[in-house]
Amino acid sequence: MRSVSVIGIGETKFGKLKEYTLQDLIREAGQKAIADAGIEKERIQALYIGNYNGGSLCSQSTIGAFAAEAIGLPGIPSMRTEGACASGSLSFRQACMMIAAGVYDVVLVGGAEKMTHQSTPYVTSVIAQAEDKNLEVAAGVTFPSIFGMIANRYFHEYGNVRKEMAMCAVNNHRNAYYNPDAQLHKLITVEDVYNGAPVTSPFTMYDCSLVSDGAAFVVLAATDVAKEIGVKNRIVEVIGSGHGGDTMTLVSKPCITTLAATLQARDEAFKMAGVTNADIDLVELHDCFTITQIINIEDLGFFEKGKGAKAVAEGKIAYDGAIPVNMGGGLKAKGHPIGATGISQIYEIVNQIRGNAGDRQLNRAEIGLTHNLGGAAGTCTIHIFRGL
Amino acid sequence: MRSVSVIGIGETKFGKLKEYTLQDLIREAGQKAIADAGIEKERIQALYIGNYNGGSLCSQSTIGAFAAEAIGLPGIPSMRTEGACASGSLSFRQACMMIAAGVYDVVLVGGAEKMTHQSTPYVTSVIAQAEDKNLEVAAGVTFPSIFGMIANRYFHEYGNVRKEMAMCAVNNHRNAYYNPDAQLHKLITVEDVYNGAPVTSPFTMYDCSLVSDGAAFVVLAATDVAKEIGVKNRIVEVIGSGHGGDTMTLVSKPCITTLAATLQARDEAFKMAGVTNADIDLVELHDCFTITQIINIEDLGFFEKGKGAKAVAEGKIAYDGAIPVNMGGGLKAKGHPIGATGISQIYEIVNQIRGNAGDRQLNRAEIGLTHNLGGAAGTCTIHIFRGL
Repeated sequence: MRSVSVIGIGETKFGKLKEYTLQDLIREAGQKAIADAGIEKERIQALYIGNYNGGSLCSQSTIGAFAAEAIGLPGIPSMRTEGACASGSLSFRQACMMIAAGVYDVVLVGGAEKMTHQSTPYVTSVIAQAEDKNLEVAAGVTFPSIFGMIANRYFHEYGNVRKEMAMCAVNNHRNAYYNPDAQLHKLITVEDVYNGAPVTSPFTMYDCSLVSDGAAFVVLAATDVAKEIGVKNRIVEVIGSGHGGDTMTLVSKPCITTLAATLQARDEAFKMAGVTNADIDLVELHDCFTITQIINIEDLGFFEKGKGAKAVAEGKIAYDGAIPVNMGGGLKAKGHPIGATGISQIYEIVNQIRGNAGDRQLNRAEIGLTHNLGGAAGTCTIHIFRGL
Repeated sequence: MRSVSVIGIGETKFGKLKEYTLQDLIREAGQKAIADAGIEKERIQALYIGNYNGGSLCSQSTIGAFAAEAIGLPGIPSMRTEGACASGSLSFRQACMMIAAGVYDVVLVGGAEKMTHQSTPYVTSVIAQAEDKNLEVAAGVTFPSIFGMIANRYFHEYGNVRKEMAMCAVNNHRNAYYNPDAQLHKLITVEDVYNGAPVTSPFTMYDCSLVSDGAAFVVLAATDVAKEIGVKNRIVEVIGSGHGGDTMTLVSKPCITTLAATLQARDEAFKMAGVTNADIDLVELHDCFTITQIINIEDLGFFEKGKGAKAVAEGKIAYDGAIPVNMGGGLKAKGHPIGATGISQIYEIVNQIRGNAGDRQLNRAEIGLTHNLGGAAGTCTIHIFRGL
């Protein structure tokens, strides 16, 4: 298979963007990515886009052709992928493999969601479409309650990590403070997390990711083609890709404190990349809730099972720690426009590897990893990147 | 790239299936395809599924993980593709290329839609999400009116083909009559089409595809792996795959009587397959409306532009004609459960190539072609198959 690289990136600001339609978000981020690559748009041969639920949120489906026309690329093949919160990274993986297989040379890949114009109860019901309607939604189970059960089970198995969960939120808010695209620019303390509005045991509002509008795009190219074209910025190679699966329903999982989809995606991605955890300089991972951040750093293999919270308390995932996590601010503070999230994680990694991350730039950022979950971890997509 | 083949097929009956949920449809068709392949289900490494709008129609999104669990394949990577009425064939193309690239050896690919439990006005509004909300839906334009405008423009450019449109419906009904899975088993005449309930100029009810429940699945495998495993039925190789795009909105297309997405997909698929129109024995094409059937047989290159209607009148697309079209009954009479349609076309081609099509079996069926459109032809996917 051919080597594939990211040659352009673009995203909108994340947040409550009243002045933007879904089309505006897609147009801005897509055109930014093409401009950032510095290539003629005629070179783009296909468009892949992740979108969770334009149908229910915006009465707009078929976001592939919709995006191609919005960005000014009609006449190229397009498609949408959906896998709940992993919708964006699923598009990224498919596009990578299409280039690796030699079907295309240059592909535009994005993700987008417009959510904040809808009421919170309605958005909650739409997000709950990513659960099993009969086994979970009918029982009144929403995603906060699913991950609340996971947190409580984690406490049972490994001890109470309430404080370290709060520290994850503090860390993500700190990172987002230095990210101009982030939805929240507010430094918080552990006490703030404890005192937040209660959501479900053990979460307060500060343990939960945000409802956001936003879009992110990247231009992908065969590495040899990218070198031949001559692109504006440092080329960032996709050295690993993994896609894992698990049952959709929580009740069917034999264990809920280790997420099987993450393990499967991790093994595939690391094997393809030929690297180990020790080689990774930074991680953007799926912190839909604070407990998920702790579980993820364990499942990804950076810390032993049950030792993730200790690592958080010791500052190991901070910007100056052993393995900086969510330098962009994460779903918690950068925001979570569902379809865009997986691509936005890649945006941050590429920005860091290029050395363009401004006030949040890491000293060392040569190899980075993204981790994107869908639903109650029924889907996981992991990618590993290296600067060329 | 590796050769890829279809080694198993399964579908539900299409129609108003009151007793089936979306989950039931998926389970039945998926399990039938695996049983038909005669392989252990543990060999299946990934699941791709096309679904247009489970969210709006069934309050169920994230159909990838949902399907994996329903079929009894939890723990494998899964994803959903969406591109309006081409949702199913987009999954098929992605899965093919993942196998061709060496990522997977055996993949289950399907499509499903549950529609008939909703009211006709609601279904119409959900289907209209595949148009541009602001430019088309806001103006009261639905898909029958889009394709009605295309038909009237076709009349303007090439003359009135009202009668030949009706003959397409008659032909599809004839073929469906011999297909036990078809929604309609009713032979009709040209007069019946003329006298049907009016929909929009120039269409009556008999010019329009159906609202249906249904699911269809196929098992795909690397051809060398399939031979090694030893499967139950004749192996059918995927020799060509093409994916074309065009503007989403009708108003942006310079020409609406030739569908640019079809031309693009056709060129890619034929080039890959190394065959010409003369080599194709049968076609399953996207007859969302009768006019589309005439346009498609021209765009696919079987007849000159403007000569498609004459070919229909001469019986050239009938079961005993030069190029039999829609032996399964088409969207018009087999049915159109949106996400399932693209896979159901493949089901028919494989069945014919195997020689298992019962009362509608063609004498010669060695090389077949499927053609699946999405939206107002903003997307087109074409595949070409050959029996081994």
